[in-house]
Amino acid sequence: MLYKVEHIGIAVKSLDTGIDLYEKLLQTTCYKTELVESENVQTAFFKIGETKIELLASTTVDGVIARFIERKGEGIHHIAYAVDDILFEMNELRLKGFTLLNESPKLGADNKLVCFVSPKDTNGVLVELCMDRPD
Amino acid sequence: MLYKVEHIGIAVKSLDTGIDLYEKLLQTTCYKTELVESENVQTAFFKIGETKIELLASTTVDGVIARFIERKGEGIHHIAYAVDDILFEMNELRLKGFTLLNESPKLGADNKLVCFVSPKDTNGVLVELCMDRPD
Repeated sequence: MLYKVEHIGIAVKSLDTGIDLYEKLLQTTCYKTELVESENVQTAFFKIGETKIELLASTTVDGVIARFIERKGEGIHHIAYAVDDILFEMNELRLKGFTLLNESPKLGADNKLVCFVSPKDTNGVLVELCMDRPD
Repeated sequence: MLYKVEHIGIAVKSLDTGIDLYEKLLQTTCYKTELVESENVQTAFFKIGETKIELLASTTVDGVIARFIERKGEGIHHIAYAVDDILFEMNELRLKGFTLLNESPKLGADNKLVCFVSPKDTNGVLVELCMDRPD
């Protein structure tokens, strides 16, 4: 089951400018920044209710977020839904005809195991499933 | 205070196709559809945790959602944050330099009073504040 919106990923050019803006908008402070080396992305997190806002800035000129901003401009990059059993949910989505962008779960920010669903199957919205990594 | 992600608005070409897709993705049924005449938009709602997914389809060829899809394709249209006191929060944002797209709250879907913040001030993300309409 997908049981909540775990986070919304927002692509920004500058993490510092983004943090400043979201602290003003959400009236809460950024509680964590984290480098995700495998994705060449620096992230910053804000909590609002049960959901996080995750700002994403590229650490390289040709990283996935840099290329996203080049194509579409700054803005919402993905929606991540929390799941209890990522392997089960990946299989469910596969059976329903969704295309998964990674065939097995990979390590994302915030100590999560994650899987992305192709936006071609989801009305242009990049969807992420994420699960807390077991200890 | 902005206290939760109330809903995420997703622009779709066809509401029927979108409903079918989101019922499969979220494994939950669409619990309501609603016409918002003032915006020329037909909406469909799904619940996931404390957040709703709101699909938006234009009822006219030149409506705001039709024009959005023409420019950017189907995808996430806005993020709506719940507030307790919309007039207070609108004033707070104004004082912090955000540009509001409507100067007083207007009636949105789901019996809410809403206000939009210009995406020019929010990294390309259209932000909505929304509050339950008092009885």
